[in-house]
Amino acid sequence: MKTEKVSELTTNRLSIYLRCLNELAASGAETVSSQAMADQFNLNSAQIRKDLAYFGEFGVRGVGYYVEDLSRHLRKILGLTERRRVAIVGLGNLGTALANYQGFDYDSFEIVALFDDDPAKIGRKTRSGLEIQSDQNIGEVIRSECIEIVIIAVPATAAERVLEEVTEAGVRAVLNFAPIHLNPRPGVKVNNVDLTILLESLSYFLANPSDEAVNVHHREFLRHDASANGAGG
Amino acid sequence: MKTEKVSELTTNRLSIYLRCLNELAASGAETVSSQAMADQFNLNSAQIRKDLAYFGEFGVRGVGYYVEDLSRHLRKILGLTERRRVAIVGLGNLGTALANYQGFDYDSFEIVALFDDDPAKIGRKTRSGLEIQSDQNIGEVIRSECIEIVIIAVPATAAERVLEEVTEAGVRAVLNFAPIHLNPRPGVKVNNVDLTILLESLSYFLANPSDEAVNVHHREFLRHDASANGAGG
Repeated sequence: MKTEKVSELTTNRLSIYLRCLNELAASGAETVSSQAMADQFNLNSAQIRKDLAYFGEFGVRGVGYYVEDLSRHLRKILGLTERRRVAIVGLGNLGTALANYQGFDYDSFEIVALFDDDPAKIGRKTRSGLEIQSDQNIGEVIRSECIEIVIIAVPATAAERVLEEVTEAGVRAVLNFAPIHLNPRPGVKVNNVDLTILLESLSYFLANPSDEAVNVHHREFLRHDASANGAGG
Repeated sequence: MKTEKVSELTTNRLSIYLRCLNELAASGAETVSSQAMADQFNLNSAQIRKDLAYFGEFGVRGVGYYVEDLSRHLRKILGLTERRRVAIVGLGNLGTALANYQGFDYDSFEIVALFDDDPAKIGRKTRSGLEIQSDQNIGEVIRSECIEIVIIAVPATAAERVLEEVTEAGVRAVLNFAPIHLNPRPGVKVNNVDLTILLESLSYFLANPSDEAVNVHHREFLRHDASANGAGG
């Protein structure tokens, strides 16, 4: 359990390092030290060294990292050497925004199918030229198009059913934007983008600007004395 | 650094507990044990007890937690007792989707202003009846409307400038959807919703379905022998 969480945070940092390396490569840099990378991108140099060491010792003493080399390794680690085929289910505003999103790495992710259940939308094309299909054919299309990742952008009430259908068709990776926590079957990973949690963490920050203030503040809510320790179960 | 991250994960879990408690309250439950809550919502009971103990001992031996009571406490901890005023900058598909998003807790967050720089959009109303304003007045409106949270949904090239403007006007909490990592000034919190990172973590999962497989797999990339340990910086 714990290992998995560490690993998720670590791979998220690898994603960030990869983006930094891409910028460095674009600016013509051939090598970079963890310190220079930390300074330029506001990261932690010790953390960079630790993360990269975990996946093998890529650094060279006195040189640092070879930018292209390390970038290629990170892409391998993150599974970005094969292009992943992606479908979006639900072409409301959010799904449409995602279908037209400019921030994806299109070498690694290719949006190949769009599904909706609204007859008025089926057959329409998005800005990218892709046609919206009826969600009645989801399973079939997922199989024939070898889709590996599904982005769920349907209302909360429909999300569970969509997850069911796409995992039934063999999808093992899902990005869920519906405001509902989905519990996938074993072997399937769902990344939930939960806007409520993100907003509540901002609200928490506004209520408790510093960690110290947090602790002081929260102790005010203590209602039970020490004898209650260990209760609450 | 570490403390802050733990605290972020913890507050995210508090958000989840709060949602579970709301469901329990809606179904008429008056008390719940950490075990029952864990079972019903697929959580970890020891983690629940630990998280809640950190913020004070809310549990009562032999009873568990009082649902309404704990819910009220969590809302206090998360700063949800005051309604936060929110603005969205950038009314493209994504911004429009967010403006019409049904998943927000409208008791805690109120979207009170929408900004765009496109003359064709200014003056238009969203489904919620709110009018899109020119982003030239951002600072002024933020001050007069007492806006505390800003959601940035502009293209990457404009995001830094928007962050600058809204923090200049006193905003300390930002949810950033632009595909660029923003570095806020001290005292300002930016939650980045980075779709690339979320997709890359799915890609990593597809390439490395289990943690054990991960470790084996990654060791294949080892290129340096043990003498390289500690280099790379």
